[in-house]
Amino acid sequence: MTTAPSDLFDLPPVRLKPKANARAIRHGYPWVYADDLVNDRRTRALPPGAVTVLQDGDRRPLGLVAVNPQSRIICRMLDRDPAARIDEEWFAARLTRALDLRAHLFDAPFYRLVHAEADGLPGVVIDRFGDTCVIQPNAAWAEARLEALTAALIRVTGARVVLKNASGRARALEGLDDISGVLHGTAPAAAVPVPMNGATYMADLTGGQKTGLFYDQRPNHAFAARLAAGGAQVLDVFSHVGGFALAALAGGAGAALSVDGSAAALELARKGAEAGGMADRFATRQGDAFDVMAALAVEGERFDMVICDPPAFAPSKQALDAGLRAYERVARLAAPLVAPGGFLGLCSCSHAADLSRFRAACIRGIGRAGRQGQILHTGFAGPDHPTHPQLAESGYLKALFFRL
Amino acid sequence: MTTAPSDLFDLPPVRLKPKANARAIRHGYPWVYADDLVNDRRTRALPPGAVTVLQDGDRRPLGLVAVNPQSRIICRMLDRDPAARIDEEWFAARLTRALDLRAHLFDAPFYRLVHAEADGLPGVVIDRFGDTCVIQPNAAWAEARLEALTAALIRVTGARVVLKNASGRARALEGLDDISGVLHGTAPAAAVPVPMNGATYMADLTGGQKTGLFYDQRPNHAFAARLAAGGAQVLDVFSHVGGFALAALAGGAGAALSVDGSAAALELARKGAEAGGMADRFATRQGDAFDVMAALAVEGERFDMVICDPPAFAPSKQALDAGLRAYERVARLAAPLVAPGGFLGLCSCSHAADLSRFRAACIRGIGRAGRQGQILHTGFAGPDHPTHPQLAESGYLKALFFRL
Repeated sequence: MTTAPSDLFDLPPVRLKPKANARAIRHGYPWVYADDLVNDRRTRALPPGAVTVLQDGDRRPLGLVAVNPQSRIICRMLDRDPAARIDEEWFAARLTRALDLRAHLFDAPFYRLVHAEADGLPGVVIDRFGDTCVIQPNAAWAEARLEALTAALIRVTGARVVLKNASGRARALEGLDDISGVLHGTAPAAAVPVPMNGATYMADLTGGQKTGLFYDQRPNHAFAARLAAGGAQVLDVFSHVGGFALAALAGGAGAALSVDGSAAALELARKGAEAGGMADRFATRQGDAFDVMAALAVEGERFDMVICDPPAFAPSKQALDAGLRAYERVARLAAPLVAPGGFLGLCSCSHAADLSRFRAACIRGIGRAGRQGQILHTGFAGPDHPTHPQLAESGYLKALFFRL
Repeated sequence: MTTAPSDLFDLPPVRLKPKANARAIRHGYPWVYADDLVNDRRTRALPPGAVTVLQDGDRRPLGLVAVNPQSRIICRMLDRDPAARIDEEWFAARLTRALDLRAHLFDAPFYRLVHAEADGLPGVVIDRFGDTCVIQPNAAWAEARLEALTAALIRVTGARVVLKNASGRARALEGLDDISGVLHGTAPAAAVPVPMNGATYMADLTGGQKTGLFYDQRPNHAFAARLAAGGAQVLDVFSHVGGFALAALAGGAGAALSVDGSAAALELARKGAEAGGMADRFATRQGDAFDVMAALAVEGERFDMVICDPPAFAPSKQALDAGLRAYERVARLAAPLVAPGGFLGLCSCSHAADLSRFRAACIRGIGRAGRQGQILHTGFAGPDHPTHPQLAESGYLKALFFRL
């Protein structure tokens, strides 16, 4: 673990260019792009993750920022107080505030504890699974201060195990490696049972993103579970560890079929169904989601509810057009599998595809399948994934529920 | 009650101009604007509410439409089958489909039963309060067929009382009067108790919009109730008959104060609190919402949760700028009343103010009050208010929940 530079040395301040929008920063915008910063030799010499004072064009302090000369987001605001010290106490205060909210929202300690900028810890994501916490330090400043962050996390939450997950795509943009590890305690030897919406999910916290668990769909799972009540036959495509399927079964679905490309994820889904005492109503089918949907249509299968929660097809602006075509194709293949009067849930976790574009792609796909529908519900990520007001346009998760 | 013209005569078809977008209609767009229709003498001579066949520029039938030569929305698609008959059977089929959805969604028969275009009954809104239904026939075609609609409604729902509410703003655009009345049975002599989110609301169904009940906020009430659990002190501004306040009390709030300009609405709120056995935790304050918020700030009052659910400040595009300033002002006056770490819920039911603009206005207002926050949740109208896929941009209700 590297030692945080600003904790040892007095670093020179960084300064906005005279034309940069200091007002936006004063009004709460948390980032400075490289083009807006005076990029002199002293700034370029700062080590990635250095913490120093940001000044406006007239050298008035705006606050304490983390600087990464390698990143397009060259500064991230840490504290409006330029005299703040980014130490264990500071982390503990931010974590306590984040914990207060989650403890208020949820009955059990299973949630996203820290959601980056919105929780005052830029680029830092922490998920909590009972007494195990998983940190994603997706910005250089946090990577350089993992020791203080981990100590504060243990102090505030009482966590007995703290893991580091370095699989986040943003780490490469910050010049960080992708080596995960154990920061405190002993990594769980088996998948961890996670209660959510009355179901039990099995999360493999060391097997990487593919088999971990995402909390963001919690309210959308709950909505789907309500629709499935009364014995619905449910198809959950891109099911991962059983996200929508297990929630639907817990809500009263008659049967659920999970489709995923990953045998490991489906095995965890099956274990979750067993743990919840609903294995007899649960089945899986491994394979490419598009192929399986086409095959089910050929087989004449119809479901009362079909949910598709694919990976991000449009992770960047460059991938937007292809991504929207993929979402349209998902809708076109899924709609024929929905019984008349049944429900279709379509999700996107693509930043680049905003709600309006994603919805239009879904409606086109449904129309090309020769079906029509009403939109019943538009859902986003749950409240343990708050958004920073100045970054509100960037909400990534959308879930649309149609009745066909 | 007038007799529906198309039920007696064969009316001439209406035709799209050659340049009009017939493809959009074929793909499900449900309206034709006056500029897109061949407006010859025969069309102008059609009585408002006439039902006839819509043709494309090449005289190919597109479906059966309701025509109102007086309205900017000159045609509304009723049925893709140009040979359909708009009679009691037809209404019964649409109502059955609408009822199936609500019966699936809700435990008790208190909901919006028909939400216009999305439920295949353009311009028609029907709210159900147990065995009383209230029809808002906001388009001429429905006004002309109220008898068949009412008969079908009684048949499908078993309603014992059917009321007509003619207070909708859209009626004037359709050339309709504003005279409400009783269509079937006897109007309830007193306010009707309505169960929702564990609370009891009192709805005065004959006193007009001011003291009726809106079902659209149901999921947002539920979200607020969850935030209020554990004894929160709640302020509900523009409270109407106690919307957020009573839900919060049912969810475990310690106390709630309802503010509204209407003494009649607050009296119904008080009766609702009594009916729910929570009158001891409930108080009201009548007056202008802006004035009362300013006064509460002067009195140094702070609440764990403040909710503002004002009337539509931006009902039209012309009113947008003034409306957004009013939403900003609401946020600016409400934010100081929120205790540190508390919650602020801000709602808009303005069509013209889209989510992005409304959110920006709220964030500006919070900032001008010297406060900062996270956005926890963005909610829309509940699933008994579905949207037509081709009119999805028009979703009117938005609720934003901040933690300050």
